[in-house]
Amino acid sequence: MSKRDVTLGIDIGGTTTGIGMVDSEGRLIAKKTIDTFGKKPFEVFKKNLFQEWESFFRAFQDEVNILAVGAGAPNANYYKGTIENPPNLNWGFVNFVEEMKSFFHVPVFITNDANAAAIGEKFFGAAKNSDNFIEVTLGTGLGSGIYSGGQIVYGHDGFAGELGHIIVKPNGRLCGCGNRGCLETYASATGIVRSFYKFLASENKESILKQKSMNEVTSKLIYEAAKNGDDIAIKTFEYTGEMLGKGLATAVTLFSPDLIVLFGGAASAGDLLIEPTVHAMNKYAFTPFKNKVTVKLSELPMGDAAILGASALAWNELKK
Amino acid sequence: MSKRDVTLGIDIGGTTTGIGMVDSEGRLIAKKTIDTFGKKPFEVFKKNLFQEWESFFRAFQDEVNILAVGAGAPNANYYKGTIENPPNLNWGFVNFVEEMKSFFHVPVFITNDANAAAIGEKFFGAAKNSDNFIEVTLGTGLGSGIYSGGQIVYGHDGFAGELGHIIVKPNGRLCGCGNRGCLETYASATGIVRSFYKFLASENKESILKQKSMNEVTSKLIYEAAKNGDDIAIKTFEYTGEMLGKGLATAVTLFSPDLIVLFGGAASAGDLLIEPTVHAMNKYAFTPFKNKVTVKLSELPMGDAAILGASALAWNELKK
Repeated sequence: MSKRDVTLGIDIGGTTTGIGMVDSEGRLIAKKTIDTFGKKPFEVFKKNLFQEWESFFRAFQDEVNILAVGAGAPNANYYKGTIENPPNLNWGFVNFVEEMKSFFHVPVFITNDANAAAIGEKFFGAAKNSDNFIEVTLGTGLGSGIYSGGQIVYGHDGFAGELGHIIVKPNGRLCGCGNRGCLETYASATGIVRSFYKFLASENKESILKQKSMNEVTSKLIYEAAKNGDDIAIKTFEYTGEMLGKGLATAVTLFSPDLIVLFGGAASAGDLLIEPTVHAMNKYAFTPFKNKVTVKLSELPMGDAAILGASALAWNELKK
Repeated sequence: MSKRDVTLGIDIGGTTTGIGMVDSEGRLIAKKTIDTFGKKPFEVFKKNLFQEWESFFRAFQDEVNILAVGAGAPNANYYKGTIENPPNLNWGFVNFVEEMKSFFHVPVFITNDANAAAIGEKFFGAAKNSDNFIEVTLGTGLGSGIYSGGQIVYGHDGFAGELGHIIVKPNGRLCGCGNRGCLETYASATGIVRSFYKFLASENKESILKQKSMNEVTSKLIYEAAKNGDDIAIKTFEYTGEMLGKGLATAVTLFSPDLIVLFGGAASAGDLLIEPTVHAMNKYAFTPFKNKVTVKLSELPMGDAAILGASALAWNELKK
């Protein structure tokens, strides 16, 4: 039996890390989830990864041929192959590509999770036919991976594409980055909760969520409340879309993409978010670009998207 | 005597068109300026161009070997080789590349003037060592050409890079494009004049320019007044830099360039503009990118820059 060619996708999250073997059609042959041990030094993660891999891989070693490894991680530098002081991992500066190469003995590539999602979308998802699109990841924050002319926009240092940190409201909300008015303080799971507070303040209306403690109110609960006709929650999503659309209008004016793909937990609000987003995007984009950009939801399977993206990074590099 | 390889650069402006033969080092062998006849149909321009070329070129035909033609024009589409309804030319839709190919019998390329300036800067000017930079043309409006990963950002339709039309002030100044608050309503020769009015309104101070008719007040006069200590004029340039810096901060956050080059008439204000621009750019850029981007003036000779840029477009394509 001839072996099947795969790449290994490694998705490093703050809590868990997913590992999967993916073929060139995006079929996930097998996957495993391990602990990231984010509070401990990188050495702990590495040792555990290699041990888990040995036992996991044993069952597949006659079936697959691993051509390369791709990884997605916070604060990953594509050019240098490093992970650099990620806020949610206690790792400091890690020479990730070197460490993996000496174990797997195949080419290894790394990029940040938002770029990996974009590459996954290009290879296996909603962006197969686009060379100019923006993948927007709506999670706790807002990440983006930008394709321009068929290539990811990396910038001079590998860290380009920070759509979450363009300022959409001068002197607006304080952001974790220290600036005020960054897009992700409005368009993200945490931004949605902050907007809910805003409308509690401005509207003086009842909300079915007022019985909850403030710590319990999540973007998901606000979404469900909006679906049930809660006025404050509906206004919250309209406003989130308005701000997201403003940010996208800027990106459209600079990149002239034909497609924007929304990905991540907060994107599952669907039309409740997409409708006001598209409206605002077309209102604020450069006039010749209005009504020319498609906005759609990711077509990657939510649970496996990050692994598929990391694997697609490796497939993309092998193609070069 | 062996012939010298050159490309022909054609810079199409609203009033005049420059033609020049440029070698691979950026040396302008010869140039000629002709009328664009922008109010008449394209056929008039074309016939005149070909006639002028025949007589102009006769003197050089034993000296140069023309490898390709590059052109910079408003509303030029790089992908399609067309000029599409430029606002200042009464040409409609012109299949420029086809028209020129059938006359010159060499490869012909076209892009918009802002992209041509960026390519010229990359080949012959201040951006030789950068693969990720933004060329900002400060003229009547604000144009931009953006290099990302060593390539011009064209977008899906060839019209990307409209930095002048990102919105830097929600509900701000009315722009010719129909939107409000576009960067070019603040950071351009006309934007400078509008800001001068703004401070006449808000400051209630004297200005040496008040003796002029409003039609006479230009960005150049405001610059000279600022140099002479005129308070309103000084405030005008501070504000122009503040707004330009805000716009650049957004571009930096998305593209992570290592260099921004300012080009065009209004850029000649030099430090009066650059200082507040850099200050605001570093204030509003994503925190990890602060203080990492160099801002400098173009190193292309002002009068020949557009021809050099058009020629560089051709050299760039020949290299591919």
